[in-house]
Parts: sequence; C-alpha cells; structure tokens
Amino acid sequence: MVSLQSKTEKVRRGGQADFFTRVADYLAGDLDRVDDIIGEALQSQIGLTCEVARHIEAASGKRLRPILTLLAARAGGGPSDHVCHAAAFAELLHIASLLHDDVIDAAALRRGQPTVNKRWGNDVAILMADYTYSRAWEIAHTHLPTELMAAFCRVAAGMCDGEMFQIETRNRLLTEADHLFIIRCKTAGLFSACTKTGAALGGMPEAAVAALERYGMEFGLAFQITDDVLDFTADPRVLGKEIGTDIACGRQTLPVIRALERADGDDRAFLIAALNNGSAPQVILECVQKYGGIAYALDAARSHAQAARQALDRLPETPARQFLIELTELVINRAY
Amino acid sequence: MVSLQSKTEKVRRGGQADFFTRVADYLAGDLDRVDDIIGEALQSQIGLTCEVARHIEAASGKRLRPILTLLAARAGGGPSDHVCHAAAFAELLHIASLLHDDVIDAAALRRGQPTVNKRWGNDVAILMADYTYSRAWEIAHTHLPTELMAAFCRVAAGMCDGEMFQIETRNRLLTEADHLFIIRCKTAGLFSACTKTGAALGGMPEAAVAALERYGMEFGLAFQITDDVLDFTADPRVLGKEIGTDIACGRQTLPVIRALERADGDDRAFLIAALNNGSAPQVILECVQKYGGIAYALDAARSHAQAARQALDRLPETPARQFLIELTELVINRAY
Repeated sequence: MVSLQSKTEKVRRGGQADFFTRVADYLAGDLDRVDDIIGEALQSQIGLTCEVARHIEAASGKRLRPILTLLAARAGGGPSDHVCHAAAFAELLHIASLLHDDVIDAAALRRGQPTVNKRWGNDVAILMADYTYSRAWEIAHTHLPTELMAAFCRVAAGMCDGEMFQIETRNRLLTEADHLFIIRCKTAGLFSACTKTGAALGGMPEAAVAALERYGMEFGLAFQITDDVLDFTADPRVLGKEIGTDIACGRQTLPVIRALERADGDDRAFLIAALNNGSAPQVILECVQKYGGIAYALDAARSHAQAARQALDRLPETPARQFLIELTELVINRAY
Repeated sequence: MVSLQSKTEKVRRGGQADFFTRVADYLAGDLDRVDDIIGEALQSQIGLTCEVARHIEAASGKRLRPILTLLAARAGGGPSDHVCHAAAFAELLHIASLLHDDVIDAAALRRGQPTVNKRWGNDVAILMADYTYSRAWEIAHTHLPTELMAAFCRVAAGMCDGEMFQIETRNRLLTEADHLFIIRCKTAGLFSACTKTGAALGGMPEAAVAALERYGMEFGLAFQITDDVLDFTADPRVLGKEIGTDIACGRQTLPVIRALERADGDDRAFLIAALNNGSAPQVILECVQKYGGIAYALDAARSHAQAARQALDRLPETPARQFLIELTELVINRAY
C-alpha cells in the first residue's frame, strides 16, 4: 500500500492540481470573492489577530467547501453574491473547527506550516477560533435565509456532538455504526450543508436540492474515510501534517475498527494497547493491513463516492455537474 | 482592606441575597423561562454533552446578564418571549466564554465547583463551549431582529479582540486607556448589548434605548473593575473561585497598573517580576495597596457606577428602573 502510493503519487498530485486549476478557472471571480470575504472577516483592529489571520490565509487549504457550495449553485442556476457569502461562511466554520481540533490534538503541523497553537499557544488558537466563529455567524446572519441558517446551526452543533461522542466512547470499542455517526457529524454534515445551501441559493427545484444535499453527505463520508486512511498511509511531506495522530489520540477510525473486528489474541491486544498508549505507526499499519483494515476502509470510501455520483444522475448536464462527478473520483484517490 | 471586607461580608452577602430574591420575584416567570430556554439549548443526543450541561447549570451564576436584559425591557414596555430568548442568548454567550477562559487560565474552580476543564479535560471544555456558541447563535438568529443580532456579533468578536489585545501586550506595561479598552471589549460590551437589546425589544423610544445601552456599558465597567479588585482582596470561599489568578496569568488590571505608575525602585521591580513569574498573593496585595492601587480602582468603579446611575435619570420611574439603580450600588459593594 505504502509503496503503491509512492509510485502513483506523482500522477495523483498532477491530476489533483489539474482539477483544482480547472475548477478555479471555471469558478473564477466567485472563488476570489470568497477569499475576499474570508480575508475581510478575519480583519481586526488588533494586530495579533491580523497576524494570526495572515498565517491562516497563507496556509489556506483547497477551499473544498466553498468549491462545493459554488458548484452546487452553478449546477442549478447561477451563483449570487449570497452564495459567495455562504461559501465563505462554511470555510470560516471549517477554519475555526480546525483551530480548536489542533489545540485538542496538540497538533504541531497543518498544511505544511506550524499550527497556530504551536506558534502562538493554545490561548491564541482558542480565541482566534472564537473570533472566526463570531465573524462567520455575522456573515451567515446577514446573507442566509432563515431555514438555511438553521441547517448550518445544526451542523455546527453536530460537529461538537460528533467529537463529544468520540470522547465519551474512548474507553470502549466502536462499532461501524458508531463510526458512521461520528464522521457524519464531524465532516459530512458540513459538506452536505454546503451543497444544499449552494443548490437552494442557486434556485434549484426541491428534488435537486435534496439530491445535492445527499451528494454532499456521501462525498463527505468518502472524504473522511480516505482522510482516516491517509493518517495511516500518507507521506507526511505530501499531506502537510503529521500522520499516525488518530491512533496516538486514541481515535478509532474505520481501518482499525475493521481490524479489531477480525483480529484476536496478541494482535487484538496490540491494537487495543496502541489505542491507549500509542505505538510505532509502521507497526500499527502492518497489523491493520494484516486484517484488511485499509482495503476495507477504501472499499467503504468507494461505495460512498459512488452513492455521491448517483445522487447527480437526474441533474441537467452542466460543467458544474461534471466537476462534481470528477470530485467523486478524486476523493478516493486523494493524497491531499 | 481584607479585614474590612471580612467584617462587612455578612452584611453585603445578605444585601445581595435580598436583592436577587426580590428581583427574581419581580421578574418571576420570565427568569424561569430564560432558564428553560438555556436548559433546552444545552440538551443534546450525546450523554457526555448532557452531563457537562447539568454540571454547568447546577453551578449557574446570578444570571446577571439575563436580569439586565429583562429589567431593561420592563423599564420600557413589557417583556416578550423574544426578550427571554435574547436574555438566554446573552447568558449562553457568557457561559461559552467562561468555558474557554477557564481552559486558557487553567482554572480549577468556578462558582465553588470544579471547572469543566478540570473535571473532564480541555478537549471537553473547548467543545462544550463551541456547542454552547452554536446553540446560542441558533436562538439569536431565530429570535433577534437583524440590527440587534449584528450588535451581538460585534460584541462576541470584540470579546476575542479584548483578550487578544491582552495577550499581545503581555510584554509591555499597559496604560489605563489600554485597560479601559480591554474591559469594554471583554465584559462591558456584552452588558451593554443586553440592556440595549432589552430596551429595544421592550419597545422603548430611541433615546431611552441609547440611555440603557450606556447604562449597560458603565455598569459593566464598574462590574469588571470590582471583579479585578476581588481577585486581590476576596475570600475565595465567598468568591467561589481562586484569587490571585490575574497576576499569576500576567494580566495587568487597574490596581496593578495604578501601583506601577506610582511605584519605583524595588517595589516596581517586584511588581513586574510578579506579573512575569507570580508571587505570594498577600505580598502582591500589600505592595499594590502601598501605592493606593486598590483604592484607586474602587474610585474608578464608583465613577462608572455613578455614570450608569445617571444614564437612568430620564427614564420613567418604574420598579425595573429602581432595580437597575440598586444594581449600581450593589456592583461597587459586591462580594460575588
């Protein structure tokens, strides 16, 4: 798996880079507008806040949530300025949650840069996240209709619910159903709210909004499962963050849940001990692979990606729909 | 100062208890309604979240922000269900900010109970605050008109700004103007938004809304300054939390700013060293008192309380106004 990945890595990264260049061309001004709204939201009269904001913006991600929001809007009608605000809002929520996640995990690296908690301390990271949340809600309140705002509120609360459930269940083994609940809450819910909001603001009929909402959820599940696989298998230089952190934090992701279902004796005891006290990432990976944990998780990711693909079946053929289809292929081959 | 306080403590606590009993009688059903809304907002499908929520509710404070919101509404017209939601929203924002503050300060005690971070860990406290924020924004979005919601968004962002400024200026001495900016942001802004919102939702004319907004700001400044004095002088058993934490965290509050303006030589060097590395609270207090820091801060608190009192001059004479006047007296004699 690891050697396979390094062989195909160049091809994959090329494919991804190409995709993100093309989608940026297609979305053009809208994506710039989203960046401007985010930049403006993170402005402050306090120098330190602005300094941290610049650090966050310099190491910005692929803007996947804004891209999905804008594509969903274009798959129906056209984007409006409200769609750009919704897209920026979703990204700000995501940024805030990453800031807090990195404090919770004591993470040192994010997107190839030192995390805010590493560079400025936990206090600054916690406050910067709160600032980002406040600014995000201000945007949402000003630009989103009530029912969409309510959906985002539920998603934001759900992101906490998912993490709280993960903490609550630290001392017992998770089932696959538990795990599905967690990743729906933590990740897929926000993607789903993005595509739903984009579609609704783009003026699509109800059935198409529901289809795009489903797309976002299934895409998000595929995305999170491959993310969890990458935490075992990725090259940290490519990923831009440390690997092996899930196990180190005692988080049971699909590969290890599957392996634990099938392992017994010493291997089972080893995996449980690794969840409690950590162990060398390579040794853990070998044990998980021995019981097919990685392959099983990748199969699950493929199923969700396929379900996302199918949700688009009845949408009119547009360039936006084509990009959304491409994303369901990229998501299971990602190295980012 | 300390012995004076312990002598009058019983009287003061009696006065406060009496006030809060009478105001609770006056506001009656509305305050219960606020508690219900808060309780409902903190409900979750996750057991751990509910457990932490029960802990927070069992050690709930005086509900000062809801009380101010409801009194401001009654000083004008009558309260509505929207006012109760605004009051609950303000308290939820406050609860969330305390949860994060306690993580940042590594505080072990709050309202006589172990803090959430102490009992469940930083991760749970951070997530519980985020959950509380999300639920608060949902309430605000559903029940507040746009312009009031925008005011609260600015206040919430300002609370972070104030703390970020405090961190940014850790390595230099603060002026009184710096300090005023910090406490406006961190504390008084929220009180001011409460009284403004209550007045506006209570249907008061514009000038009265502005007067109550000013009342909240001045009351909040007096409140924070006495709070900072109590961190030097209070009995921790009465206060329900540790004292001496401001200096221990390197926070320059008004008593120490004043003392540093007047001290020189060894005393000045001692205070600066105490801000950097801490020292015995009793020794710090003696040094601050030697330069009149406590008396100066209490004078400043009295001035702000008087300005709050004067803001009420032109309001019609109602029981609500009378309670607001009483609060300006209690705030400078508080032991809570």
